[in-house]
Amino acid sequence: MAPVKVFGPAMSTNVARVLLCLEEVGAEYEVVDIDFKAMEHKSPEHLVRNPFGQIPAFQDGDLLLFESRAIAKYVLRKYKKNEVDLLREGNLKEAAMVDVWTEVDAHTYNPAISPIVYECLINPLMRGLPTNQTVVDESLEKLKKVLEVYEARLSQHEYLAGDFVSFADLNHFPYTFYFMATPHMVPKKP
Amino acid sequence: MAPVKVFGPAMSTNVARVLLCLEEVGAEYEVVDIDFKAMEHKSPEHLVRNPFGQIPAFQDGDLLLFESRAIAKYVLRKYKKNEVDLLREGNLKEAAMVDVWTEVDAHTYNPAISPIVYECLINPLMRGLPTNQTVVDESLEKLKKVLEVYEARLSQHEYLAGDFVSFADLNHFPYTFYFMATPHMVPKKP
Repeated sequence: MAPVKVFGPAMSTNVARVLLCLEEVGAEYEVVDIDFKAMEHKSPEHLVRNPFGQIPAFQDGDLLLFESRAIAKYVLRKYKKNEVDLLREGNLKEAAMVDVWTEVDAHTYNPAISPIVYECLINPLMRGLPTNQTVVDESLEKLKKVLEVYEARLSQHEYLAGDFVSFADLNHFPYTFYFMATPHMVPKKP
Repeated sequence: MAPVKVFGPAMSTNVARVLLCLEEVGAEYEVVDIDFKAMEHKSPEHLVRNPFGQIPAFQDGDLLLFESRAIAKYVLRKYKKNEVDLLREGNLKEAAMVDVWTEVDAHTYNPAISPIVYECLINPLMRGLPTNQTVVDESLEKLKKVLEVYEARLSQHEYLAGDFVSFADLNHFPYTFYFMATPHMVPKKP
């Protein structure tokens, strides 16, 4: 069986979300790079994969998908095993809690953390732009409040959706990984 | 069996998403209004339902949920019938396409259409603020491009996820409903 294909630079957070899920389920896959500088994401070939000209895109035989969370869920469903069931769709309440904290990542955690990653890493290192410290400070304030809710949640449960690791946790990895490379990552005192 | 409860003003687009799904599956439900002017969304009672102090929140017996898409999917799964299966989770490819276009609504359609609704309706009518025409014009440009992709998609398929109505379509209703009350709704010539 030909491996599934993921289109897009692996260092993009949205591509990383898909790769993380492929790794978790142990699926065979191939990453096909998309060259943004050459505008390859707006090429006719790529627009067939994603009509909005964004990454990632995904191919499994004749099935083409886009939108990282949709691709990730397809991967988790397709390669689900008893020991790796990250969506818990067989259990109504557990699946709902996975969805709740997946949505919190998309609509609350990411909007707070991503501007810090952009301002401290992506803009200065990849775009030659200065860091806007006002944006960083406002986002740090926002993130702090968001993390207070996470702290309370994780003092009651081992993982975000409950006492089982899930897609909800995985979703937080890509931006958190980059955040840890900014000067605002303060390690806990030992 | 006690009806499930939805907390939040029914006119909110995110609350409407949940109500729409409850109506589609014919579930019995009760809407409990949350008074924003009285800061009820930040009250201790409501923070138990949604620790971020937002609406909607949802209660089904001892289960408390928040995040409108997570609640909506719980409702669609719980009350799924053969004739009303809006998530198609029994079919890997169909479920993936429902997810793709649900994500497109959240990350592409809503960001283009919602500023128009805010500037033309919510700000002037509910907040006494003037319409920022620059924001409206920019969003209309964005929306036009987004709708070209929709036009292409819907010329190939009856509905967004394929030739079946799904959660993906429903998600577009709340903002589209309000958009149709703005001066920018241009009806098709007969």
